[in-house]
Amino acid sequence: MSHADPGADAANEPRDQTLKFLPKFDSAGLLTAVVTHAQSGEVLMVAFMNREAVEATRETGIAHFWSRSRQSLWRKGETSGNELRVVEILVDCDQDALVVRAEPAGPTCHTGARSCFFRRLEGDTLVRVNS
Amino acid sequence: MSHADPGADAANEPRDQTLKFLPKFDSAGLLTAVVTHAQSGEVLMVAFMNREAVEATRETGIAHFWSRSRQSLWRKGETSGNELRVVEILVDCDQDALVVRAEPAGPTCHTGARSCFFRRLEGDTLVRVNS
Repeated sequence: MSHADPGADAANEPRDQTLKFLPKFDSAGLLTAVVTHAQSGEVLMVAFMNREAVEATRETGIAHFWSRSRQSLWRKGETSGNELRVVEILVDCDQDALVVRAEPAGPTCHTGARSCFFRRLEGDTLVRVNS
Repeated sequence: MSHADPGADAANEPRDQTLKFLPKFDSAGLLTAVVTHAQSGEVLMVAFMNREAVEATRETGIAHFWSRSRQSLWRKGETSGNELRVVEILVDCDQDALVVRAEPAGPTCHTGARSCFFRRLEGDTLVRVNS
């Protein structure tokens, strides 16, 4: 995040004011994608996208990510079937994060939970929440 | 994200099953923090936390982040007054992302928008949404 200096495009139009889509990838070529449930607004998962993943997501309407551990493009649901159909993409001020509002075909988390955020921090321990 | 190998603590208890808080910082020492409005659930901003920011947030109840551009700890609202009072922290499966449910003292975005996600992607352009 660079709230003090949100960056500018070639025409010096700041990323936080322009109506051009100028995604800002970090030094590893990634931006952050937050997937929310299109109806409930619940945060389902957080992952990363490189330029290829952003383009694949826009072209197919199905969320794609970049797997940092496998170093490969990852179409969410390609093995589980639990894909994420994109309803809308929101872009943040400095264009280094996206909110992907999606319709999940099933549980989003690999654990079978509806959301990856199925635990709440309480003191030094985690407590399962209804997910 | 490492959905295939969510990592384990010293006792080989996987991060996605344990009820221990074992935050997983990336190679830059950071994890992702998604701030949502405690009442509406709206995503307000996305930023990064290092261990110090996680601890400061837990100790004070006010969201702290690590500024990648300034390379310094950042107490959101320290200049604007628009701090984020933490209501609850959710932890994802592999413990490399947090959802911080918060009560914002004012607009979260430095642009004055309620949320940093005040534009929607439509084709190749952005459209302002009500925020």
